[in-house]
Amino acid sequence: MTFEQRVQDRTAVIGVVGLGYVGIPIALGFSAAGFQVLGLDIDADRVAGLNAGKSLMRHVPDEQITAMLARGFEATTDPARIAEADALIICVPTPLDSHREPDLSFVTGTMDALAPHLRTGQLLSLESTTWPGTTEEVLRPYIERAGLTMGEDFYLVYSPEREDPGNPDYTTNTIPKIVGGTTPACLAAGLALYGTAVEQVVPVSSTAAAEMVKLLENIHRSVNIGLVNEMKVVAERMDLDIFEVIDAAATKPFGFTAYYPGPGIGGHCIPIDPFYLTWKAREYGLHTRFIELAGEVNAAMPDYVIDRLFRALNTRGKAIKGAKVLALGIAYKRNVEDMRESPAVLVMERLRDLGADLSYSDPHVPRFPRMRKHRFEMTSTPVTPETLAAQDAVILLTDHDDFDYAMIGQHAPLIIDTRGKFRDGGDTVVRA
Amino acid sequence: MTFEQRVQDRTAVIGVVGLGYVGIPIALGFSAAGFQVLGLDIDADRVAGLNAGKSLMRHVPDEQITAMLARGFEATTDPARIAEADALIICVPTPLDSHREPDLSFVTGTMDALAPHLRTGQLLSLESTTWPGTTEEVLRPYIERAGLTMGEDFYLVYSPEREDPGNPDYTTNTIPKIVGGTTPACLAAGLALYGTAVEQVVPVSSTAAAEMVKLLENIHRSVNIGLVNEMKVVAERMDLDIFEVIDAAATKPFGFTAYYPGPGIGGHCIPIDPFYLTWKAREYGLHTRFIELAGEVNAAMPDYVIDRLFRALNTRGKAIKGAKVLALGIAYKRNVEDMRESPAVLVMERLRDLGADLSYSDPHVPRFPRMRKHRFEMTSTPVTPETLAAQDAVILLTDHDDFDYAMIGQHAPLIIDTRGKFRDGGDTVVRA
Repeated sequence: MTFEQRVQDRTAVIGVVGLGYVGIPIALGFSAAGFQVLGLDIDADRVAGLNAGKSLMRHVPDEQITAMLARGFEATTDPARIAEADALIICVPTPLDSHREPDLSFVTGTMDALAPHLRTGQLLSLESTTWPGTTEEVLRPYIERAGLTMGEDFYLVYSPEREDPGNPDYTTNTIPKIVGGTTPACLAAGLALYGTAVEQVVPVSSTAAAEMVKLLENIHRSVNIGLVNEMKVVAERMDLDIFEVIDAAATKPFGFTAYYPGPGIGGHCIPIDPFYLTWKAREYGLHTRFIELAGEVNAAMPDYVIDRLFRALNTRGKAIKGAKVLALGIAYKRNVEDMRESPAVLVMERLRDLGADLSYSDPHVPRFPRMRKHRFEMTSTPVTPETLAAQDAVILLTDHDDFDYAMIGQHAPLIIDTRGKFRDGGDTVVRA
Repeated sequence: MTFEQRVQDRTAVIGVVGLGYVGIPIALGFSAAGFQVLGLDIDADRVAGLNAGKSLMRHVPDEQITAMLARGFEATTDPARIAEADALIICVPTPLDSHREPDLSFVTGTMDALAPHLRTGQLLSLESTTWPGTTEEVLRPYIERAGLTMGEDFYLVYSPEREDPGNPDYTTNTIPKIVGGTTPACLAAGLALYGTAVEQVVPVSSTAAAEMVKLLENIHRSVNIGLVNEMKVVAERMDLDIFEVIDAAATKPFGFTAYYPGPGIGGHCIPIDPFYLTWKAREYGLHTRFIELAGEVNAAMPDYVIDRLFRALNTRGKAIKGAKVLALGIAYKRNVEDMRESPAVLVMERLRDLGADLSYSDPHVPRFPRMRKHRFEMTSTPVTPETLAAQDAVILLTDHDDFDYAMIGQHAPLIIDTRGKFRDGGDTVVRA
């Protein structure tokens, strides 16, 4: 029986490697499509939690995990069990190292663990964002070293994740899925597989093209956010309200798309992915100047926020040292609890270093989580008229819908507003 | 009777100053809304042509001009007649000088000519794209020197044009119109005026905000085109098809907007307007780095096209000198005849300088027009199998719909394709 037949009659077992923000939604999708799903992760706590029906992610309710368990889902830490799977979908992180270069160690670590267990008839799909060429140059040799023939007894594809946690309009199965294959047979197998779980599959001519698609999407966002951050600084110096300007420009029904400035960029994609292309382009003697500029401008935003605070406090004869400062919203974007690469944390660290009497409030982050590079022993402060009135300054960093902006505007003596939520605040509101 | 009453009952006379790509559509709009329109231009030939019912612009049929004449429209070169008008709408060019700095001479020349004829009860609206502050710093003093009181017996507004000639989906009256006023009364008068001719008016808090809106729109385009031009160069070096990558990325239903690369940027807005902000920002000690980078990358594209041609001919053992080269499409964008700032002209000049045996074909440009900075004594060559086969290379610069791409692909021995129209051309197609 061919791979595609096993997919069609749902006897194929879907292995998902890496059970995080990307892996869990894809596992849920294939489970809902009628497949038995086997999840693999190196984190034993996460595996145990999932097997006990715990989602570990706010935007995925536990009921979805228990329903998937009822349909035969199982999580394991044992890579040998991957031999049971027909499809291996790799959803592991691809971060940057401390020199801002690609860190593929999660991908190669995964491949090292899986390699002894690869077998005839399997399909392997990488979903992690990475530089064009990764699938061919890094993954393909693993398959070939295992003695498997590409496109004949093994299929290799690249299909970038496009998850957007918290987006109310789109879910994994309604977001079109790009697929590139190492051979035409690989591509066909990949399309057959993903076609069972997502409404629209989009074939491209190679795995490298698919890798570039994902990078272009995130480079586009990084550069557009960089641009409005630069425009924000210019507008503020000219005494113009950049949010008013952007909203008015957005009334143009063609040729303009609104992006909004903020205290920097966060999340696991936009601050990181573009530099995968930067790194690869150097191999060709090329510089990705827009990526570098966007990175530079966006990375300067936390200091810009601090500078705006410093000047506003200074006008009142106060230093940052000893000032009571409340950070409002510390997740990396609106209405989520995700803290990865949140620029709010960078602002908080600067405030701590400068000696501020710092607290934070975030309805989605009741306790400051353990992070690889950042450490705060803090819990979320309730936002009340009293706590607001007791501050020297309040910095709005992430504009969750749950905040009562009218109440905040009424009681905070000074608001540093990085999100344009306070439009006519008079002297107590400073844009940053 | 107040200005707004005269607008409401259509007894107001609308004066339009500058009868070109912007002025004519706005004159047509107010005429259609029931106003008598008086047009002023310094070009006597244009004025005579309009009074004789000649449109002078391909996308505006003569019948629209004759219909407007029948409704009382008249064109004149006499600035004294502007005293007859209640509204003065300034639609003159704002180019860059040879040092890439704002050239406001058309605006100040207009104001010098109008100043002696300004009177109580008039509204003056500037539509020309310009740096934030122009209306307040440059125009307002003219009004005040004339002894008129802003917001009481004279109204001053800025309302940027958003014309997009050749756009089949939107016309002057369906594109929302931004209005900023020098005083609240000025804004109210401006909204009343434009509200009669366009479906949606969008008030902003100041003339400077309105000026910034228009710049942001065009900066956004310039930067996004610059980004894809940079990505094109990277993709081509990696043997990826940037057009395939962009089209695939565009299947993402959020967070991505497709912009396409090309041989540079043209038209009267995108290559010019952003530098108005660059110039003004220097006054504040600020550098507009995205604007500069986009300008640099986009300006490098004609040379990039030449380099791609040089390498493709070189592979065939040929030099550019003496090679027969046909430029396909020389207007600045698809399906229009507009040649302003067309990058195709820059490519043609380089080819001429390098000694190519050059010809061009453009169904919208039968004869190379007189241009301020460029001169070619050429007429459009018909595109036939014979003329194509006789070329050493054909360069697709502007992808008009009228071209028969299948026929071109079949007969041209070498195609340098800057528009991604030839996707699977094999050895005869080179992307540029």
